Amino acid sequence: MSTAYAFAAPSATEPLSTITIERREVGPKDVLIDVAYCGICHSDIHTVRGEWGPVPYPLAPGHEIVGTVAAVGSEVRRHQVGDLVGVGCMVNSCGECENCLAGEEQHCLQGNVGTYGSIDRDGTITQGGYSTQVVVVEDFVLKIPDGIDPAAAAPLLCAGITTYSPLRHWGAGPGKKVAVIGLGGLGHMAVKLAAAMGAEVTVLSQSLKKQEDGLRLGAKAYYATSDPDTFETLKRSFDLIINTVSAPLDIDAFLGLLRLNGALVIVGAPPQALPVHAFALMGSRASFAGSNIGGIRETQEMLDFCAEHGLAADIETIGVDKVNEAYERVLASDVRYRFVIDVSTLR
Amino acid sequence: MSTAYAFAAPSATEPLSTITIERREVGPKDVLIDVAYCGICHSDIHTVRGEWGPVPYPLAPGHEIVGTVAAVGSEVRRHQVGDLVGVGCMVNSCGECENCLAGEEQHCLQGNVGTYGSIDRDGTITQGGYSTQVVVVEDFVLKIPDGIDPAAAAPLLCAGITTYSPLRHWGAGPGKKVAVIGLGGLGHMAVKLAAAMGAEVTVLSQSLKKQEDGLRLGAKAYYATSDPDTFETLKRSFDLIINTVSAPLDIDAFLGLLRLNGALVIVGAPPQALPVHAFALMGSRASFAGSNIGGIRETQEMLDFCAEHGLAADIETIGVDKVNEAYERVLASDVRYRFVIDVSTLR
Repeated sequence: MSTAYAFAAPSATEPLSTITIERREVGPKDVLIDVAYCGICHSDIHTVRGEWGPVPYPLAPGHEIVGTVAAVGSEVRRHQVGDLVGVGCMVNSCGECENCLAGEEQHCLQGNVGTYGSIDRDGTITQGGYSTQVVVVEDFVLKIPDGIDPAAAAPLLCAGITTYSPLRHWGAGPGKKVAVIGLGGLGHMAVKLAAAMGAEVTVLSQSLKKQEDGLRLGAKAYYATSDPDTFETLKRSFDLIINTVSAPLDIDAFLGLLRLNGALVIVGAPPQALPVHAFALMGSRASFAGSNIGGIRETQEMLDFCAEHGLAADIETIGVDKVNEAYERVLASDVRYRFVIDVSTLR
Repeated sequence: MSTAYAFAAPSATEPLSTITIERREVGPKDVLIDVAYCGICHSDIHTVRGEWGPVPYPLAPGHEIVGTVAAVGSEVRRHQVGDLVGVGCMVNSCGECENCLAGEEQHCLQGNVGTYGSIDRDGTITQGGYSTQVVVVEDFVLKIPDGIDPAAAAPLLCAGITTYSPLRHWGAGPGKKVAVIGLGGLGHMAVKLAAAMGAEVTVLSQSLKKQEDGLRLGAKAYYATSDPDTFETLKRSFDLIINTVSAPLDIDAFLGLLRLNGALVIVGAPPQALPVHAFALMGSRASFAGSNIGGIRETQEMLDFCAEHGLAADIETIGVDKVNEAYERVLASDVRYRFVIDVSTLR
């Protein structure tokens, strides 16, 4: 066991503050990571405020972790002390079910172990990356390729893979028209990634406020969904729509923007049920689908793709003293496009 | 112009009765068909009763038509007098849009011309197959292969292609587990077709009333959806679920039966919106999709597949005098599994 500093929520209603936590002994297959940066994901806020169910407090969130390997267990083969590595939304899974064997650990049939607030396979509660150190089994530790800024790489571990995986699964690439709903943390990565894959990208945003950014990030077009004409102009235009907005939207209206065999894929989950009319699906053999992060193999593929194409997140780096304030700004969509905590400020 | 008998609805509320209608002159690309059989589809009832919108009365429904070619236009190359042919749910389309060019005329971007109650491209109102004769452009006339009973072939033109197309599109075949919701006109064809494609088929029906039939038709298993245990027992079991039931179902519950990357495809459209939770989709990268009949090329492929595998519909053949009674029996699900009108009784 070792002691680490963590920036944790004491309860659903109190601000986060610095505490010390125990990290487990480095086992034969474990990697000890000195955390350098951790992104702030909207999920962190939902979770620590208890909006997604009961949570074991105190809880340090954070699942966009980048750091340096400080120690490895005797059986670790993939990582060495000094390597720059990353950890995303999960830190373990059963490793034996058909989904784990297929490299889709996020869909582990026994349930994957989330990076924070989950019960790990040894029975301990996981604590996230708003922390000076973390211990993770080597199979869930990713290599950060050379050439990506470590701070800007952090959000790739969640926002990056969450958008990369459905883009790949539904075939984004040359000749395909892809729309991205929402230009936030996930949306800005979806635009960059889809454009780098060769797809023609359109942003569908509430307003035209971020239009300049959208085009700079790689979009060819930008439309306001508050303008009803948008739905007429873009009727039957897209092969794939990635919905990064967690708020409930008019799904039927967006299904009307799909070409034959198109898919509308939701990657942020509003708690409400979304009403869908069968006719809206049958009109273009459309799919309304959902995607949840990605597997470990695909996460490494995404990191390598980003390095190859010179991609990373657009970030605002902050010290831990600004985290509580940053939470309010995330809720107000006042960030372009991801906060990343400089964990060296935590002590 | 020629005069034909038709069995038509005078209004939304009166029973169908015999009238005479005019069929257009056989144009250069037209085929005149002496109708032998016409299936009764649930859509016929919805339409003539005005439940799917306003209808031009008197209207003869019927889009599961089998008959013999009686005359052909001067430019017709695909069909000859005396051929046994079929006509399904559509009789024309623009022929020029990307979907028509892809052989998906059912998704014609200008709208396909329905076999009845639609405005044809010459401005006339189409009348369906409850009629002694019909004139259709050759491209929308299918060949009925040798070896299929003509009466039992009729329902293939709607119930057959409506289920064949999504089974093919979503890859039903050896090693795939397919569930069929509902064992009616569409459902019984879905079971036969999926089994013939090599998939392992399960029927999910309200009760076990038709279990013996389901197993005889090719299903390996049969479960009652009224039993809540069914949803626990079959959790994450299927690659594909074809929903043939037009009534609103608990979509989230059925999504829970899908394996990773599975699809729940709706082929019958309830008018109500169906509530879907994003988490139900994200849990297994599931797709909730819709499918609407199939293209002409695929319909011919389906007919050839049925001939090759010795498949056709299970039918109850009736005279026109029984059509109004049959409508009530269809609404009461009291048919195994499709009524087919012997059109020689119409005069």
